Amino acid sequence: MTTETDAVRMTDAAVAHLREREADHLAQFDEFLRIPSVSADPARNADVQRAAEWIVAELERLGIEQATIHPTSAHPIITAEWLHAGPDAPTVLVYCHYDVQPSDPDDEWVRPPFEPRFEDERVYARGAGDDKGQLFMHLKAAEAWMTTAGRLPLNLRFFFEGDEEVGSGPIETFIDEHADLLRADVCVVSDSDTFDDHGTPGIGYGLRGIAYWEVRVSGPAHDVHSGQYGGGVDNPANVLARMLASLTDADGRVTVPGFYDRVRDLTAEERAAYATLPFDEAEWRAETGVPAAMDGERGYTLQERLSARPTFDINGIWGGYSGAGAKTIIPAWAAAKISTRLVPDQDFREIEQSMKAHLESIAPPTVTASVQIIHGGAPAITPLDHPGIPPVARALEAGFGTAPLFQRSGGSVPVVAALDAQLGLKTLMVGFANPSGNFHAPNEWMSLRNIRDGMASIVHLWAELGAMKADDLRA
Amino acid sequence: MTTETDAVRMTDAAVAHLREREADHLAQFDEFLRIPSVSADPARNADVQRAAEWIVAELERLGIEQATIHPTSAHPIITAEWLHAGPDAPTVLVYCHYDVQPSDPDDEWVRPPFEPRFEDERVYARGAGDDKGQLFMHLKAAEAWMTTAGRLPLNLRFFFEGDEEVGSGPIETFIDEHADLLRADVCVVSDSDTFDDHGTPGIGYGLRGIAYWEVRVSGPAHDVHSGQYGGGVDNPANVLARMLASLTDADGRVTVPGFYDRVRDLTAEERAAYATLPFDEAEWRAETGVPAAMDGERGYTLQERLSARPTFDINGIWGGYSGAGAKTIIPAWAAAKISTRLVPDQDFREIEQSMKAHLESIAPPTVTASVQIIHGGAPAITPLDHPGIPPVARALEAGFGTAPLFQRSGGSVPVVAALDAQLGLKTLMVGFANPSGNFHAPNEWMSLRNIRDGMASIVHLWAELGAMKADDLRA
Repeated sequence: MTTETDAVRMTDAAVAHLREREADHLAQFDEFLRIPSVSADPARNADVQRAAEWIVAELERLGIEQATIHPTSAHPIITAEWLHAGPDAPTVLVYCHYDVQPSDPDDEWVRPPFEPRFEDERVYARGAGDDKGQLFMHLKAAEAWMTTAGRLPLNLRFFFEGDEEVGSGPIETFIDEHADLLRADVCVVSDSDTFDDHGTPGIGYGLRGIAYWEVRVSGPAHDVHSGQYGGGVDNPANVLARMLASLTDADGRVTVPGFYDRVRDLTAEERAAYATLPFDEAEWRAETGVPAAMDGERGYTLQERLSARPTFDINGIWGGYSGAGAKTIIPAWAAAKISTRLVPDQDFREIEQSMKAHLESIAPPTVTASVQIIHGGAPAITPLDHPGIPPVARALEAGFGTAPLFQRSGGSVPVVAALDAQLGLKTLMVGFANPSGNFHAPNEWMSLRNIRDGMASIVHLWAELGAMKADDLRA
Repeated sequence: MTTETDAVRMTDAAVAHLREREADHLAQFDEFLRIPSVSADPARNADVQRAAEWIVAELERLGIEQATIHPTSAHPIITAEWLHAGPDAPTVLVYCHYDVQPSDPDDEWVRPPFEPRFEDERVYARGAGDDKGQLFMHLKAAEAWMTTAGRLPLNLRFFFEGDEEVGSGPIETFIDEHADLLRADVCVVSDSDTFDDHGTPGIGYGLRGIAYWEVRVSGPAHDVHSGQYGGGVDNPANVLARMLASLTDADGRVTVPGFYDRVRDLTAEERAAYATLPFDEAEWRAETGVPAAMDGERGYTLQERLSARPTFDINGIWGGYSGAGAKTIIPAWAAAKISTRLVPDQDFREIEQSMKAHLESIAPPTVTASVQIIHGGAPAITPLDHPGIPPVARALEAGFGTAPLFQRSGGSVPVVAALDAQLGLKTLMVGFANPSGNFHAPNEWMSLRNIRDGMASIVHLWAELGAMKADDLRA
């Protein structure tokens, strides 16, 4: 039987342990970040596997049980568990991902993306924040408990994915086939950036979904001379530009038929909460380097548009000549990668199909257009009255000394919607990264303070949730 | 004194010489084509120089005098002359260019672009038709005269350029500074594709001009996460697509203010002549591989649009992620190479400036747009009643056995307008290539029959023009 005083003492001991071992932890973190686990690049498959093995070795070393690498149709999924806190204690499923975004353009990094740079109280490296850093924090928080108390204050399961950055392809099948390894009262996902840059922690209660396509417009059988054929051969790059330009209207809205049909509008309460969030537009502009914020969808504030409204983006476009000087051709084809961020209750599978059908329907008869669905993920929302939210708020305040604010996240974490849909499992989004941390961009970084105080917050969170009864934690 | 009978005998001897030496000529042509004289690529500068030296050695070998490589601000210009036909005999300036287009995409060539393939009565190589092949034909026609008659039947000057494919940057300065080396009664340019694919020769009487830009739209300081920033950071690729799409309207017309102000419309006679040109749209579609011809500018036929109306083309577009799978970024920038083909009497310098100003004016305040002028050239037209046209028609009929047709060319040869504007020198466009010859594209080819009968035509042309008095040849 653990008394309340015991619990406080044990938590304090675990936090103290983290402080003492900080230098060792950063050295280990450096080692983990050096593994280039880029899931989008088949040439990196062995590295993704190596990252999985690194994690499993760590889990085993700190006494977490059943640590297993599950092969999937894509990259491996890792599960592990420690279930000795007793039948009344809550069981929490911790989700993070160990794969990272591609690092290009590599020449824009101050140091190579997989050679971590510790500077200015930050660590710069691909994956520092998204999401190897947050995964690493969970490993160390568990280690602190296991080393100082010889146990965890609740039952924990770990669920680490290697395909998050490429759309979590195998996740739904895995959840179906291994529901027994994922059974829990609540899920904690640490893969968000709800911290503001002045150090106020955030609790995310919503995530955007995503749908992502590649569209290719083909015209002549090969590049042709723009003098000989200009005026007669429709130019696939001209056509693609027109098609893509037509996907948004003058009000900043996506023109694909039915796109907004299922969008759940912000409530008056949410809009009021958004209005009170600390946000300095000049600082935001400086952080991004843009000369001005986008007008965007009419009728919504910048902050609302950044997380609670859907978007349309060209993520890449290419075709024809891009070398030095001039080449006077009509290119044989032009292509683009495009995506939309989705909000509750848009259905990503429905949107995937309607965009594809729309693009095919607007392509003129002078070209052939092919649209490939690359990946998708559902948006998600956690009820603000979920019983797990007060413990999360207390744990973040204990770790950081500041009460957290609530907001939706603009990004996407497909597993959140999948766990809800398939297992009825709600998720608490406990993220430790800053939105200015260059996720998916050169010079990605994570604050060392957020790592330090975030690990302490996780130690507190397990104590907070461990003090609850399992039944009380279910929404 | 050469009698008419002598002239016929001498022409026949020169033509016979060409037939006898054909195998040697093709071997020499192979050697010339192997020099990768790509003017757009600074890494090929030495090869462009080497091509110039190859030509000068040839000119000297066959007894043409004063063969000189003139350095310029870009690639060298070659001049040479043979002026011993007497003061009453006409002087003709022959212009061709020895630089070639870049060869990419190299993997679409059946054989590497600078390893000529002789097959199916064609030679495939970069430059085979545009324009090293046509330049080579002039060298061999002169050689045939010099070898068999010991002289040419008229005064000839040669003017060979190394920058035609990159906009003929130094040409105007050169014409100003070396007018004495270019003085002539008429200019013959062999750099066009007015042959139809069934073997009917063509005489071009018009050329389109060109203006070419690179436009770059920049937004955030680096690529940013499309989830975190989507809806707030305007996407430079979205913006570029919208800007480029807006440059043409639903009627297929360019929207840049003032763009059509100086366009000289086709006369009723020209439209009637266009209507009688042999043209098989199904064959044209098969040649290009397009599923359908472009609607294009309303009110004009396909053939008119292909050579007598201006165009707008995206020649290349690039920005963001184009690798495998998905990368969910808003790219920091996106860029395009764009160009318009111009028709008489559009002023390419005026259009260069008005496009630049227009693009800068339509860029939204969320991005910065920069527009660089890459190159330009004026359109040109030769009066159909020029006294040099009947001799050209007779020479082509003598060489090919078929009377030529008259049409404008869709391409651009900047020197033609420059010689007219600066020296008052009119040009006869005597081209030997087929429009289906993959100029500027992979697997460029030239017909061996057109080389063979074209060289004979040039031999005849010098006899035809040599029989005229210089004064009668000036327009």
